Amino acid sequence: MALPDGCYPDDVRERGFRGRRSVEEVVALVRARVSTLPREAVPLLEADGRVLARQATAQVDVPLFRRAAMDGWAVRGEETFGATPLDPRPFRIAGESFPGRPSAAPVGEGECVRIMTGAPMPEGADAVVPFEEGAREGGRALVHAPATPGRNVGEVGEDVRKGDVVLRAGRRLRPQDLGLLSSLGFAQVFVVRRPRAALVMTGDEILPAGSVPSGHAITDANTPMLQALVRRDGGTLLCGPIVKDDRAAVREALLASAAAADCVLVSGGSSVGAEDHAPSLLREEGELLAHGVAMRPSSPAGFGMLSGKPVFLLPGNPVSCLCAYDFFAGMAIRVLGGRHPDWPHVKVRMPLGRKITSEIGRVDYVRVRVEEGRVIPLAIRGASILSSTTRAHGFVLVEADREGFGEREMVEVRLY
Amino acid sequence: MALPDGCYPDDVRERGFRGRRSVEEVVALVRARVSTLPREAVPLLEADGRVLARQATAQVDVPLFRRAAMDGWAVRGEETFGATPLDPRPFRIAGESFPGRPSAAPVGEGECVRIMTGAPMPEGADAVVPFEEGAREGGRALVHAPATPGRNVGEVGEDVRKGDVVLRAGRRLRPQDLGLLSSLGFAQVFVVRRPRAALVMTGDEILPAGSVPSGHAITDANTPMLQALVRRDGGTLLCGPIVKDDRAAVREALLASAAAADCVLVSGGSSVGAEDHAPSLLREEGELLAHGVAMRPSSPAGFGMLSGKPVFLLPGNPVSCLCAYDFFAGMAIRVLGGRHPDWPHVKVRMPLGRKITSEIGRVDYVRVRVEEGRVIPLAIRGASILSSTTRAHGFVLVEADREGFGEREMVEVRLY
Repeated sequence: MALPDGCYPDDVRERGFRGRRSVEEVVALVRARVSTLPREAVPLLEADGRVLARQATAQVDVPLFRRAAMDGWAVRGEETFGATPLDPRPFRIAGESFPGRPSAAPVGEGECVRIMTGAPMPEGADAVVPFEEGAREGGRALVHAPATPGRNVGEVGEDVRKGDVVLRAGRRLRPQDLGLLSSLGFAQVFVVRRPRAALVMTGDEILPAGSVPSGHAITDANTPMLQALVRRDGGTLLCGPIVKDDRAAVREALLASAAAADCVLVSGGSSVGAEDHAPSLLREEGELLAHGVAMRPSSPAGFGMLSGKPVFLLPGNPVSCLCAYDFFAGMAIRVLGGRHPDWPHVKVRMPLGRKITSEIGRVDYVRVRVEEGRVIPLAIRGASILSSTTRAHGFVLVEADREGFGEREMVEVRLY
Repeated sequence: MALPDGCYPDDVRERGFRGRRSVEEVVALVRARVSTLPREAVPLLEADGRVLARQATAQVDVPLFRRAAMDGWAVRGEETFGATPLDPRPFRIAGESFPGRPSAAPVGEGECVRIMTGAPMPEGADAVVPFEEGAREGGRALVHAPATPGRNVGEVGEDVRKGDVVLRAGRRLRPQDLGLLSSLGFAQVFVVRRPRAALVMTGDEILPAGSVPSGHAITDANTPMLQALVRRDGGTLLCGPIVKDDRAAVREALLASAAAADCVLVSGGSSVGAEDHAPSLLREEGELLAHGVAMRPSSPAGFGMLSGKPVFLLPGNPVSCLCAYDFFAGMAIRVLGGRHPDWPHVKVRMPLGRKITSEIGRVDYVRVRVEEGRVIPLAIRGASILSSTTRAHGFVLVEADREGFGEREMVEVRLY
């Protein structure tokens, strides 16, 4: 039905959504439209937690030189054969080798070099006798045990060989990965660009974060929450001023956001009323791919594309906003950034302490507490109780094909 | 034994550590000396992941006004009693109430106001009949079902009541916590100050991160790794230039670091040789509380205090450095920052695919892979194999009172 200015007629809200999409369908739509961003080079010291965009190949061997793996005496191993505490073998101490300060003297027949862990092996030596398996006697070391050639010696390329692929594309870089890359001489790495999400925060009743709420105005809860959620998922959130429920203003903000960012989050005005401009604007200026989802809370969520960028319609109510973000937008941001699409929460399996009732055909996001090893669903009167998500330890998803879970049934809790 | 300049004699390294402390003892020493830092105020938008230093108490009710919890018709509930689809009750539509734009008209007898979710309830009304339980007929709404007073109405203080403690001190702030605090009008919060760790990176053989290793020099792996680890634990790492193995230079760096930061990490020179200045300097200038720990890798780790700040002696070898950091320094940084002292890794229990052998009296940090639901310890020739920590999915700790674990035994894996 085409409308003069793309607007819903006044009574559409009274009729409700024409038909809701399943969560699964919306997830599939998002997955089909979102792909990983291109790469960028970043200094190694800023690559913590980023996703490698191309495999890292060693350009050098590690170690680059033969080195001692213990503190001790560097010797020709075969000369120690047969040594025991009762029949020690004496070696003349020809020099010392420290890390970065190798021994100038090579190890000749009957000789040794005092060597520290990590120091270069002197020429001629092929084994290190640990200090505790010998004793010093003047200028000589008495060796009490045999050391086969190669013992306590780190060979060239033993850790990493030149040409080895040490980390594959798609890897989220851990602290020790940065250590390894640094030891290989990497000064920078190619990682997936960090997704930028632009927020269009709408609502005549919304005061900016930091304001004390008064009268019939409420203070914006969604900007601080979404900023932290987007950061959790590896992106950054771009925020502008709060947009009034005015069609031209919302249109302008939507277009500017899609131009500036990799994806757009719209908070508020996502339903089907005359003052809900975002869905119809999205249909007018781009594509409205889903509007209304069979889930609770957050059924007035939506998804579409604008200027090639995914746009997520998040209900203004903070709990619904959290929920719609986590089901759809968060996944998109993770995928844009090269991460795994799955929910990032730690999962635990535990028995329910009280049954959960749901409706077939709808996914429920049930906030729960974990008490004495049992999962207790929070009794919540309205969807709009933000404190329920702060009192909860996590949540349980009730899939669309289930009527709920019985008491004592094992459920999977995703922990906040 | 007092030495002329606090230095170990040349042959001390050959004698090894006098006696090693148990991991437990060192952990207890650290816990006894480290406490949570004072608080600071930060803007709410920067408080993500920070630890609340004092409880947050609501200064307003949420909601601050009675509001609709559904789209529908705001009515006097008692006037709907007995309504059915066959016997609907008509109400004259007296006005509209949107969020931030309440109805000017009150609801009188036989009247209703068209109302949107979140909008202020008009005076006189005490229930909302959802649109789907009624129908519009010209200027009237026909209500098909009864709505008891209070139905679909969010009462003042229903979510949070003024004076409620909404979040307790010690809480690590989640995205939804920021949302809740914002809706309560918090512009800033008091959080535990972020710990600053200063790194003293020592070693004649070390090239700065970003250099290509060559000759007998190796590139610093520990700075990028420690920076990421400290960040993981909620702190920031202050780095200076690499310090040569020169007693005066190490002394100066140690004192400057202790003055500048909340704790000090020393990488390298932590053992008992003549070139290991840090332990003896710590004893000279402050307290050396532990030196040598019954663990593998990382036995030459140490701990002490300097100018009232905890100092951690981390072996230069990157795997040992990682290990000593995670056992001791990481815990201290978490405690300084008000977090829980426990290891931050996610734990899973799984059967071993191959036995692990250890020695009684020593804690082993065994890097493992998880393959087809079984835990496979990595076969590693030397402690110095950093790539083992990048190939591993996590690690298993073998406590000091165990000789290891048998094949198929259930073990706890901490995932990287």
